Amino acid sequence: MNNIYKTIEGGICASKGYKANGTYCGIKKSANDDPNTPHKNDICLYVSEVPANAAAVYTQNKVKGAPIIVTKANLEKSEGKAIAVIANSKNANTCNADGIEKANKMCLLVSRELGIPQEQVIVASTGVIGQILPIEPIEKAVPILAKGLDHHKNLEAATAIMTTDTVKKEYAVEFDINGITCHLGGMAKGSGMIHPNMATTLNFITSDCAISSEMLQKALSEIVKITYNCLSIDGDQSTNDMVCLMANGMASNEEITCEGDEYEIFKSALYQVMSNLTRMLAKDGEGATKLLECVCSGAKDKETAIAVAKSVVCSSLFKAAMFGEDANWGRVLCAIGYADAEFDINKVDVDLSSAKGIVGVCRNGSGVEFSEDEASKILSCDEINILINLHDGSCDATAWGCDLTYDYVKINGDYRT
Amino acid sequence: MNNIYKTIEGGICASKGYKANGTYCGIKKSANDDPNTPHKNDICLYVSEVPANAAAVYTQNKVKGAPIIVTKANLEKSEGKAIAVIANSKNANTCNADGIEKANKMCLLVSRELGIPQEQVIVASTGVIGQILPIEPIEKAVPILAKGLDHHKNLEAATAIMTTDTVKKEYAVEFDINGITCHLGGMAKGSGMIHPNMATTLNFITSDCAISSEMLQKALSEIVKITYNCLSIDGDQSTNDMVCLMANGMASNEEITCEGDEYEIFKSALYQVMSNLTRMLAKDGEGATKLLECVCSGAKDKETAIAVAKSVVCSSLFKAAMFGEDANWGRVLCAIGYADAEFDINKVDVDLSSAKGIVGVCRNGSGVEFSEDEASKILSCDEINILINLHDGSCDATAWGCDLTYDYVKINGDYRT
Repeated sequence: MNNIYKTIEGGICASKGYKANGTYCGIKKSANDDPNTPHKNDICLYVSEVPANAAAVYTQNKVKGAPIIVTKANLEKSEGKAIAVIANSKNANTCNADGIEKANKMCLLVSRELGIPQEQVIVASTGVIGQILPIEPIEKAVPILAKGLDHHKNLEAATAIMTTDTVKKEYAVEFDINGITCHLGGMAKGSGMIHPNMATTLNFITSDCAISSEMLQKALSEIVKITYNCLSIDGDQSTNDMVCLMANGMASNEEITCEGDEYEIFKSALYQVMSNLTRMLAKDGEGATKLLECVCSGAKDKETAIAVAKSVVCSSLFKAAMFGEDANWGRVLCAIGYADAEFDINKVDVDLSSAKGIVGVCRNGSGVEFSEDEASKILSCDEINILINLHDGSCDATAWGCDLTYDYVKINGDYRT
Repeated sequence: MNNIYKTIEGGICASKGYKANGTYCGIKKSANDDPNTPHKNDICLYVSEVPANAAAVYTQNKVKGAPIIVTKANLEKSEGKAIAVIANSKNANTCNADGIEKANKMCLLVSRELGIPQEQVIVASTGVIGQILPIEPIEKAVPILAKGLDHHKNLEAATAIMTTDTVKKEYAVEFDINGITCHLGGMAKGSGMIHPNMATTLNFITSDCAISSEMLQKALSEIVKITYNCLSIDGDQSTNDMVCLMANGMASNEEITCEGDEYEIFKSALYQVMSNLTRMLAKDGEGATKLLECVCSGAKDKETAIAVAKSVVCSSLFKAAMFGEDANWGRVLCAIGYADAEFDINKVDVDLSSAKGIVGVCRNGSGVEFSEDEASKILSCDEINILINLHDGSCDATAWGCDLTYDYVKINGDYRT
């Protein structure tokens, strides 16, 4: 496939026919709130001009946030069609006796305001677990959000879903299907309670490509496996995670309804957007100072490569060593060793690299002499690659994580307060 | 069973017929070493007067330290008999091309010095992975260790196996089998790279009880499952972990060769010692300020109770909240929710308790009103209990862990240097 995926601006509004908006409505009021101080947005709404096919993947945690339950039910009722998405930060609306009722109310408010079926509204919440969600601020916000919907307000929405994130995360690409220009873009929020084996964090993606619900869900499930599910910040699986992908067909390409070249092009575009958002999430992990990107190659199958790469980015000891810029490769070997996969540990090679160079630290499962000065220089960068070769086949996979720092402890020692 | 287990002093020397010794031999020399400064012991030796039955469990990490491989081979060759144990800190002798050769050399040195079969020597190492073990200091140390072996030098040994541990860990009990007094005691080292599903850390236990090799191994495997394997400091499985249990029969009770009352008494004594050492390991977890003890009751089976209790003490987010003394019970629910077990999350109750009281924070899977002041007071203690009831049966289990602190990051950011 020789398609060009051109990176473009616009996030969830990069595709034709999408409008967004975000605002501050005061979901979490503090006694110290100064009415004259501008607040970060805490709620957003975005819509497609026409009903879009929608696909979603959800957290695998048994404790599921009420918005997850409601969104799932809505998409079943609407047979995978959606028009609008409403999302808030500051409160997860999870483990509350009235959670479902409130999540349904949010959909109802949007449905009435926009005159669309309630089951075509997707709802998501992120924030503290187990605190009652105040509905009044949301009731007031929905008309304001709806009135201000605009094709250029993607940033208003992207900032509204941030919790402990320090930067907004958006990515979009333009690509070509049989001479027709399509778009696909998204936004994401992190940045703690993130761990493989789930649809990590809140991620919203939109496209104007025409693709059937079935193929949309298939593409999303395949790409989640090698992007978000290969990300770990702290090993905690959140209760509210969801990736939601909408495709409204407004690019007017012939609808993709089966596997083939067009499906592969769409899937690659999705990979571009989702892998870049994953990287941004890792880099902005709570308290992180370094992005860790672990590539495992030479694996006998994809599953082995994923298991090994994930194991390394999940190791607290290795993450702390990276914070200390210490080339403690024994911890990489240790984490490889407890990965749930079959391979010969005595064939494993490990290299550490960054923009400042590359150093081999382990060959055939044993340490080799290397310059500690050289290694220190390499580890002083803010993006570190850990390259593992199992010498056992031709499959590879990438996993993303970040270092473990004082600030992670600080942020999570007093998150609620 | 109405036996009295009396806590006694003496660690690995609490049982009849055991002698120990420890010393500093300079396994890790630093350029700044002042010859006039006393050093922490880095090597120890202990022996039984007569050949003892020996049982062991080892790390499940694919990367196995050379001492693990050599000890396993020796115990196979000797058909579960052992006389001596040699152990060093400061170097794990793992991921080195000459690791096996050096570990065998350590056994050979002890064998020659004591005039015992080489395969009746157990060897263990703990410390940095992937650094060549210097054998010369050990060659010099073995005769000194052997000469000074003494029934009262358990402390010299217990301090020799410490790495980042801040306190030595010893525990011993006296118990009675059919009117005959028996003893069982041990020592352990922590305190990072500790995670369930393995024989965590280095643990050495001795007894003078007469019990067959087979029943000894059976008791050890059963008790490991509900003690060390329910401990997590940081989720990292070490490469060198081992629990080694010797029983030399010098108490002269009738040998335990099958299940029954005597076996149960022995197993309870083993549980006393191993659960107390586990608690000590958790409390002295790297950088820890608080011991977390999570009891899951009302489970339909033991496995479910273990999975749920472990999941909570493994959660980085919850551990950080405990450091911050924040009653963020949503993180407990979240961790319960991703435990690999089946139960109804909507029936779950959670309480937090300590020496300063108890507070209910969750009923039927939803939050309940509680006094934050009361909760803060309870969480200010250095031993916190998390009490979970699944209301789904009558099985329970305990898991142990510690809070996640700045000091964990500090210690592991520059461990090698």
